[in-house]
Amino acid sequence: MKTLKIVKIGGNIIDDDAVLDGFLKDFSKIEAPKILVHGGGKLATKLAHQMGVKVKMTDGRRITDGTTLDIITMVYAGKINKTIIAKLQAQKCNAVGFSGADGNTIVSVKRPVNDIDFGFVGDVKKVNTQTANLLLNGDVTPVFCAISHDANGQLLNTNADTIASELAIGFAELYQTELYYCFEKSGVLKDINAEDSVIENINNTNYQSLKEEGVIADGMLPKLDNCFHAISNKVKKVCIGKPEMLFNSNSKFTTIQN
Amino acid sequence: MKTLKIVKIGGNIIDDDAVLDGFLKDFSKIEAPKILVHGGGKLATKLAHQMGVKVKMTDGRRITDGTTLDIITMVYAGKINKTIIAKLQAQKCNAVGFSGADGNTIVSVKRPVNDIDFGFVGDVKKVNTQTANLLLNGDVTPVFCAISHDANGQLLNTNADTIASELAIGFAELYQTELYYCFEKSGVLKDINAEDSVIENINNTNYQSLKEEGVIADGMLPKLDNCFHAISNKVKKVCIGKPEMLFNSNSKFTTIQN
Repeated sequence: MKTLKIVKIGGNIIDDDAVLDGFLKDFSKIEAPKILVHGGGKLATKLAHQMGVKVKMTDGRRITDGTTLDIITMVYAGKINKTIIAKLQAQKCNAVGFSGADGNTIVSVKRPVNDIDFGFVGDVKKVNTQTANLLLNGDVTPVFCAISHDANGQLLNTNADTIASELAIGFAELYQTELYYCFEKSGVLKDINAEDSVIENINNTNYQSLKEEGVIADGMLPKLDNCFHAISNKVKKVCIGKPEMLFNSNSKFTTIQN
Repeated sequence: MKTLKIVKIGGNIIDDDAVLDGFLKDFSKIEAPKILVHGGGKLATKLAHQMGVKVKMTDGRRITDGTTLDIITMVYAGKINKTIIAKLQAQKCNAVGFSGADGNTIVSVKRPVNDIDFGFVGDVKKVNTQTANLLLNGDVTPVFCAISHDANGQLLNTNADTIASELAIGFAELYQTELYYCFEKSGVLKDINAEDSVIENINNTNYQSLKEEGVIADGMLPKLDNCFHAISNKVKKVCIGKPEMLFNSNSKFTTIQN
């Protein structure tokens, strides 16, 4: 089985043109097959402001109404995705942009309304690898934005970390998949203010104690849940850290183990 | 050689949800291989208004500055393209959205500044069919928006009719290509107010006299120039009319002949 690297990037890379250029230059040198997954960054919020659209929150959580879904689709699948594709082509990395609707790749169900109606938010139900794999076999790099669909014509906003882990799980039938979550820190840190306090290995056992000690909290919890979901579903390798972890063998980062 | 149908739709279909649904239902039944090309419709202008961005014109012609390019990329490649893809998937037509940057498919040069600086507008230089053809061979339908790139990282606004004709010419090496321009009329009309006055065949000879008589004027001129450009470059069939021409053998439309 070939190895397939799935790399997820977020706002800290997308929101800074020079950082994005540098990252894509490095990314284009990673040996194929590979897949890039990108989040949204600050552009969607900026566009909402420009359009005079207010961000809707319920219990501190963002709600995706119809207008917000339009904004997300325009920014994620339009502006950000096509900018990345054009920049990769300039680096001679042949790429094609995907939402989860393209190739029917990521099928979701609209999140059921319990206490909160999240609106047009999708929870992933199934990944179809066939279409993107036609491209991988032709040395083309699929670039996914964080949008899925319900297979009945409805686009749905879906967390980019989840898109990345579900793709890694889906492609594990065809490849040895490796999942890399790039973010602004060198990994999961023991002391959030000390970049040199990277916890190099997290497994199910120390994960529980790290949670109890409060070392892993807030935004890191869903990220690590995605990691453990992937590593317990045939994904070979799951790493969290700065993009350097992909390119520099001396850099430290966190590896998630089963 | 297999036949490849390339169908271009514009604002009259895109701007009306029910019309778009009906068209895509019919389109999904056309036997593959096929390609859909869509223009922009009124949504880009609407978004510009919402954002408080003024349309820039010089000598009555629209200028694509950086902000306008962003709007076009968001609306064409984001909102419209992904809406079409999701709707096609709902009809069990497997599709993948493309800009000209995806697969490095449509390479343009930024239009040189002579009397007018059109801004980020691209004139098509080369079509690379390889990536989209991987999908066509896998029974997947590429859906192109009207954006190209310069292969150096710059996206460029490009006329949708031109994208369609250049794709038809590019794919003529691999397929017998047929090009269908769908618009609001039943074809080129002798009397613009009489839908039954369709000129069923236009060739180089009667084209000249139709122009001299003023029957073909204004917006129809660039459309017909695209048609003749295609038919003189190995495209097998070029038709203009309502979408019915694709589905109803009794409908009248205009065929362009060499």
